[in-house]
Amino acid sequence: MSQQPPPVTATLAAYLVNASPEAVPAAVRLEAVRTFVNWVGCAVGGSRHAAVTTALAALSPFSGPARASVLGRSERVDPLLAALLNGISSHVFDFDDTHLRTVIHPAGPVLSALLAFAEHQAVRGDDFIHALVLGVEAECRIGNAVFPAHYDIGWHITGSAGVFGAAAAVGRLLELDEQRMAWALGLAATQPVGLREMFGSMTKSFHPGRAAQNGMTAALLAARGYTSSEQALEAPRGWLNVLSTSHDSTEITEGLGSSYEISTNSYKPFACGIVIHPVIDACLQLRKRDGFELDAVRAVRLRVHPLVLELTGKTEPRSGLEGKFSVFHAAAVALCEGDGGERQFSDRAVLDPSVVELRRRVSAQVDTTLEADAADVDIELADGRHLHLHVEHAIGSSHRPMSNADLEHKFLGLGEDVLGEARTRRLLDACWNVEHVEDIAAIATAART
Amino acid sequence: MSQQPPPVTATLAAYLVNASPEAVPAAVRLEAVRTFVNWVGCAVGGSRHAAVTTALAALSPFSGPARASVLGRSERVDPLLAALLNGISSHVFDFDDTHLRTVIHPAGPVLSALLAFAEHQAVRGDDFIHALVLGVEAECRIGNAVFPAHYDIGWHITGSAGVFGAAAAVGRLLELDEQRMAWALGLAATQPVGLREMFGSMTKSFHPGRAAQNGMTAALLAARGYTSSEQALEAPRGWLNVLSTSHDSTEITEGLGSSYEISTNSYKPFACGIVIHPVIDACLQLRKRDGFELDAVRAVRLRVHPLVLELTGKTEPRSGLEGKFSVFHAAAVALCEGDGGERQFSDRAVLDPSVVELRRRVSAQVDTTLEADAADVDIELADGRHLHLHVEHAIGSSHRPMSNADLEHKFLGLGEDVLGEARTRRLLDACWNVEHVEDIAAIATAART
Repeated sequence: MSQQPPPVTATLAAYLVNASPEAVPAAVRLEAVRTFVNWVGCAVGGSRHAAVTTALAALSPFSGPARASVLGRSERVDPLLAALLNGISSHVFDFDDTHLRTVIHPAGPVLSALLAFAEHQAVRGDDFIHALVLGVEAECRIGNAVFPAHYDIGWHITGSAGVFGAAAAVGRLLELDEQRMAWALGLAATQPVGLREMFGSMTKSFHPGRAAQNGMTAALLAARGYTSSEQALEAPRGWLNVLSTSHDSTEITEGLGSSYEISTNSYKPFACGIVIHPVIDACLQLRKRDGFELDAVRAVRLRVHPLVLELTGKTEPRSGLEGKFSVFHAAAVALCEGDGGERQFSDRAVLDPSVVELRRRVSAQVDTTLEADAADVDIELADGRHLHLHVEHAIGSSHRPMSNADLEHKFLGLGEDVLGEARTRRLLDACWNVEHVEDIAAIATAART
Repeated sequence: MSQQPPPVTATLAAYLVNASPEAVPAAVRLEAVRTFVNWVGCAVGGSRHAAVTTALAALSPFSGPARASVLGRSERVDPLLAALLNGISSHVFDFDDTHLRTVIHPAGPVLSALLAFAEHQAVRGDDFIHALVLGVEAECRIGNAVFPAHYDIGWHITGSAGVFGAAAAVGRLLELDEQRMAWALGLAATQPVGLREMFGSMTKSFHPGRAAQNGMTAALLAARGYTSSEQALEAPRGWLNVLSTSHDSTEITEGLGSSYEISTNSYKPFACGIVIHPVIDACLQLRKRDGFELDAVRAVRLRVHPLVLELTGKTEPRSGLEGKFSVFHAAAVALCEGDGGERQFSDRAVLDPSVVELRRRVSAQVDTTLEADAADVDIELADGRHLHLHVEHAIGSSHRPMSNADLEHKFLGLGEDVLGEARTRRLLDACWNVEHVEDIAAIATAART
């Protein structure tokens, strides 16, 4: 403590205030657009979940002027409450994006705040995307500085680091000066959200939503001159020291503007834990092979990474939620229905007699030579033929990112039950076009029912 | 972790739900009333501070139906926002109550939430006071379990433990069952507020306000069935383990209902750091002595505990805030004006020529034999006489609690500049009568301008 720590907060604040949109490479902007598309799909898809309905019922009596959209629903609420609700719905299926290095889900805190803010004050598409890039940069760099110690202690890093992303992004749109941006980061630092103990309850998806709301509140207060520490990250009793047992603050300040964390963002193709994605990927590919016939499947033999049976070894799942923890269901439903979206992990799908029938012919064996994103699937047909595929890297992994077409497929699967096919397609087109929109509020409106 | 921790959260929740108002001794209820009186005075007194005005300007555009009072002001806002604002104003002078064992300021988080809630849903005075007792019990017992490790790490315990107090108190008024009370505590655990790094900025007083708002939000969500962990305190990744390096959870569960933390609450007589209270106390007593004449004071010689000069050794303060860090100003202004309230630590008082003139005749010497709540003051008069007093225990310390008359004097000093004398006296009477009020909202209304 006798040596002065480097001025991490001020350096980050200066970057957030002064970064030029023109400096952001086109590929980075495209990844930001993909992040937006994926997030809107998740938020619309999750919007009917009981967590959203319950939070809306509890808090709408306190809502201010109903200017902001709750995606996928008819209600409008004030922008701070919208940030909370859209953050909940976008995370409630565990289907949102992942910054693989820190397991932060970057979009939830940042985009829930940004989109709600864009219904408070007009925001152009290019400014919106730049603010998204900067918000993700802030939260993921701060995450990099404390991962894994901070996560290991028990913080749900999406909420605890995410609040900085929301403050940075909204602060940028509010055109804060360097001192006020530092205050916004200070007000964010003092309101971290999220203990991992909450996993398995509705409170998990509360975390990105509350982080969005807290970060937006921080930026709004700082914009008016509400003072805070200007060393909130690095001070002896600042966020890095209080919320982690170790950190490397150079992760926050080195190379700002020369690399972009959002360019490493990844998207889940399937609505379940990432460990069973390689199996689903293989089944979907085998299903398209010449000679595949569902009724002719005699046995499905999986060879999988050890974690698969440890985490998803449930042989007789009885609900949609349990289905997410059954590689046997995942393989069977992928072969039956040709997909692995939220619908394939519903109660309906898990209890479907033909899925159950096929599930009982699926067996799995651990293969310790396999990487975590690999799997080997062999299908034996009634006539004795075998269809076989070895997946080296599952779709959605860093080696095989989801294509834009994959993202579209996911978006439509999430949106159609909520908005219908035609409106979902129009919304999708609007999301791809986000950079060129004059007023972002139009997209939020298009996502309402 | 192989051994199951005791069910701390469930035990606390069961107590909060089932505790009988009749079981609370009259002396405890009286201390709760004194806590209320002191808190209302502080909130009214602080209501014109820039922190309150700034937060109101930033967040009122998002306010829901204007049903709740901002004490000391004309504005009404929604109850969740009122909880935040009243929490800020009640702490912004650092003049509120203190639970001496943990340095928690108990009223801010609990009463800011309770009073705002009472403008959302009618609450009777006896229920209000019982909820206050229970809220303080929850936050201070949780504080006891982690103090001092949690505070030493850098958490502002008023915000980080206070959120439980607000959730418990509002949860009680919402008549939550045991499971939902546990969820409310879980939703509180996942939203702690407050790093000590923020001390010295407006964000410090944000902490009790945001804790009130978060705790009230937690209770409202739980009441509607928003699920959370039911082991939020004791789980391996629960609040006690994540936010502290050591804890004793028996502090939370043992003797519930047989002792009351609120009965140890203390109140500040003077609007400055507690270390200079013994000096002010002595000066106020000497000023009343026969033969004291302000114009005749030649020298004021203080003997003080070492911390006094370390923390408040400023000899030439130039603003009200700097005056709080000058024992020389404190002694001079107490002798000049016969008080040590917020007015005596204003810019006006610090720059007053006669106070400055007297301040320059005040000298101080460290005496390592003195206790922290003791001081020795000798006044030399022009005719050579000495007036001398040794204060063993300052007023407001646990040995010499403030009397009801002292609390009244403080209340009037805080309220009169805001509400005028007559309205302040009526409000004071209403506060003393709080237990017998049919609808608490009447008191909130009486505290508006």
